[in-house]
Amino acid sequence: MAKAPVLTPRAEDFPRWYQDLINKAELADNGPVRGTMVIRPYGYSLWERMQQDMDARIKETGTQNAYFPLLIPQSYLTREAEHVEGFAPELAVVTHGGGKELEEPVVVRPTSETIVNEYFSKWVQSYRDLPLLINQWANVVRWELRPRLFLRTSEFLWQEGHTAHATYEEARDFAARIHRHVYGDFMREVLAMDFVLGRKTAKERFAGAINTLTLEGMMGDGKALQLGTSHELGQNFAKAFHTRYLSKEGKQELVWQTSWGSTTRMVGALVMMHGDDSGLRVPPRLAPVQAVVLAIKGDDAVLAKVREIGDRLKAAGVRVQVDDRTDIPFGRRAVDWELKGVPVRVEIGPRDLENGTAMLARRISDKHSKHSRGGKEPVAIDALAALIPTVLEEGQQLLLDQARERRESRTSDVTTIDQAVEATAAGGWARIPWSTLGPQGEAKLAEHSVSVRCLVTEEGAVPDADETPGNVAVVARAY
Amino acid sequence: MAKAPVLTPRAEDFPRWYQDLINKAELADNGPVRGTMVIRPYGYSLWERMQQDMDARIKETGTQNAYFPLLIPQSYLTREAEHVEGFAPELAVVTHGGGKELEEPVVVRPTSETIVNEYFSKWVQSYRDLPLLINQWANVVRWELRPRLFLRTSEFLWQEGHTAHATYEEARDFAARIHRHVYGDFMREVLAMDFVLGRKTAKERFAGAINTLTLEGMMGDGKALQLGTSHELGQNFAKAFHTRYLSKEGKQELVWQTSWGSTTRMVGALVMMHGDDSGLRVPPRLAPVQAVVLAIKGDDAVLAKVREIGDRLKAAGVRVQVDDRTDIPFGRRAVDWELKGVPVRVEIGPRDLENGTAMLARRISDKHSKHSRGGKEPVAIDALAALIPTVLEEGQQLLLDQARERRESRTSDVTTIDQAVEATAAGGWARIPWSTLGPQGEAKLAEHSVSVRCLVTEEGAVPDADETPGNVAVVARAY
Repeated sequence: MAKAPVLTPRAEDFPRWYQDLINKAELADNGPVRGTMVIRPYGYSLWERMQQDMDARIKETGTQNAYFPLLIPQSYLTREAEHVEGFAPELAVVTHGGGKELEEPVVVRPTSETIVNEYFSKWVQSYRDLPLLINQWANVVRWELRPRLFLRTSEFLWQEGHTAHATYEEARDFAARIHRHVYGDFMREVLAMDFVLGRKTAKERFAGAINTLTLEGMMGDGKALQLGTSHELGQNFAKAFHTRYLSKEGKQELVWQTSWGSTTRMVGALVMMHGDDSGLRVPPRLAPVQAVVLAIKGDDAVLAKVREIGDRLKAAGVRVQVDDRTDIPFGRRAVDWELKGVPVRVEIGPRDLENGTAMLARRISDKHSKHSRGGKEPVAIDALAALIPTVLEEGQQLLLDQARERRESRTSDVTTIDQAVEATAAGGWARIPWSTLGPQGEAKLAEHSVSVRCLVTEEGAVPDADETPGNVAVVARAY
Repeated sequence: MAKAPVLTPRAEDFPRWYQDLINKAELADNGPVRGTMVIRPYGYSLWERMQQDMDARIKETGTQNAYFPLLIPQSYLTREAEHVEGFAPELAVVTHGGGKELEEPVVVRPTSETIVNEYFSKWVQSYRDLPLLINQWANVVRWELRPRLFLRTSEFLWQEGHTAHATYEEARDFAARIHRHVYGDFMREVLAMDFVLGRKTAKERFAGAINTLTLEGMMGDGKALQLGTSHELGQNFAKAFHTRYLSKEGKQELVWQTSWGSTTRMVGALVMMHGDDSGLRVPPRLAPVQAVVLAIKGDDAVLAKVREIGDRLKAAGVRVQVDDRTDIPFGRRAVDWELKGVPVRVEIGPRDLENGTAMLARRISDKHSKHSRGGKEPVAIDALAALIPTVLEEGQQLLLDQARERRESRTSDVTTIDQAVEATAAGGWARIPWSTLGPQGEAKLAEHSVSVRCLVTEEGAVPDADETPGNVAVVARAY
């Protein structure tokens, strides 16, 4: 009799597979308040490593971290018309504080443009105070009617950058720099993610922005997920909050602004882009644990050896964990490490010890290679410390290649709206000329739950405007 | 005519001095919602460095980070009777979400014991799951009627640790370990803080705890500030949330728990313990900027030299910033760096360059030494990289010595309640036998706004119980 699979197979029910994986790999639990989420230690360790790496990249741009309050007077949100329209339906409202009804209700921040501008307007006086480059790591709340762990949660963790510049060009270039060289590079180099970098249509733009850049990734089921966005805010918030500076020429000018955010949704994206039917596959550069060394049985010599190997791998710069919990059956532990997606397993039992070898299992492999799923190979114990860093770098590259290959093979160029609907219904993306689609075609696609993920130029670059001739719309069903 | 002081002198009005400093050193601003706070980049950089250091110490104990939701069903708080009584008056309540009135109001977490236990009761099944050691970095909201930046704010940032253990002894020892070797060591070694480590009386205990350990520091005006607390929760929350485990003997047992927190209040403590009439003095091991190299005037040779010195100091492991903003008057910049408390200033003008020297100014000095306030010394430029690390270590030690000396010189041993009131009114602490004071004396002190900060043994150790013979109460006015 075949063993029951650990997870619902992806091909059978992708959303169920995702839910199973999040649960069994102990990434997160549902919170008690609708749409909220408890991020468990293993899930949080993934987020924490994302934070550390991104934080360093953000600081390299000259941006400094700060912290703005969670609670915002409701009146602030109404000052920018599009902004309040966009966020009003999602707000959590505090009406009572300290045992009394508040005179003015306050909202739990859904994003911080408004409160940030209230302070920017005080801090910015002269051109000497510009550019002002601020980031914060924080939680935000957007009431979610159809929640899904990590992907859409009523509370999520994120970083939100907010900058003010003297000119339109400087703001535009800064948003592009963050998008390409903080988000894009990080996601490609560390998360091994493949994506299309493009421009949102007017319909899909951030509420209050004049332009939104996005990174769109293809998930394992062919749907799209927005991985991060950067906005040019123009002078919309500056006008609403009177954020002005004295120019070199002695004139009062409104600042030009940007904002940009990336969230715990990236953990969900990691699962859906790289996961397989055995669980998560964590890109080695991100992995909190890159290699686990397992004692198969609890013989003293075996335990001593796994610890020694652990020390040697650590000395070789590998983030390693020793699993010597021999009171738990080996099979269960092996399955659990597979679920958690640790890139490399080193397994040792008494027989291996006699041979001076260990069994090496690669969590990330090419399906055509000898290392494919389940294939373990014996490796001389003395060779492990030299071999494993190479295996990790290979795994990192393989994940990126596999994601890119999937997107390329499941994206079709089409010329009609019907073809676009058909292609996306079959679990893929379609590319269609924006001149064919246009806002009306976009509305039609929406009736089929298909959206324009972004616009790109024919060469795949980011267009300067929605209506630039030659623009191509990338359309898909999306999370 | 004497120049107006940069800050209100401490001796004149300590609270005003504090407020001036927070404002002029650009640490924080008041938020728009009562009691909330905007932490500006320089203030946040202090908190960020505290976080990094403490996070590493917390992880060394085997504790893992996780994240629990901001929003907690109101009913959770009522399950532990003392807990709800303690926190009810401070709650912020969300009554509307997503445009509708909620069926059950939810509270913005004032602390997370309740929601943590809801999940611990699911995650803990057997003795194998223990100890469960969790920490989270988060924001909490406690409605504050008399707010003061960093010290008492309606929203603050903190870490909160939550652990579950199989036995009373293990929980007790873990709380003590965190308190002494995470909080205590960090505050002494990195923040150069002096404190008394003791036990809270029943009156001052955390709502729901069976024992609270505290660290109490003496501020520049002789008042006390609680720097961090660690609680033994006994089985109170375990009972309320049915947090049970199957013991080795096959019996269902309630877990024993701890919780422990330290907050952005530490930034306020840093100001009030180490600040002087010229501003903040940041302990060198904490300082985001340990040394600033200032160009006095904008001569090309000077600018090249300050950058070169910056590079050399960086290579010597000093966290250095180059200030070449010669379009801003030198005096203003020097005052600003003093305000911000950067431990060392290196100043260079054209004349210094000719001599091959720079002027070295120490922000932290012994008032009896030649380096005291304002005293700068010329140092050969080539000697800076070797000298400055020593100056920084000396500064670190001096701050701790000065804080300890103040506490010792301003603490008196008294034998009556009247003497205790008198000593604290004069701006100091009093030590009085707990057998003399007792809960009744404690209530009497409260009429004079004096509280028992903690109990210690005659030898200054932490007593096992409030009523242990020989206990001494440390009493003071407090922030």
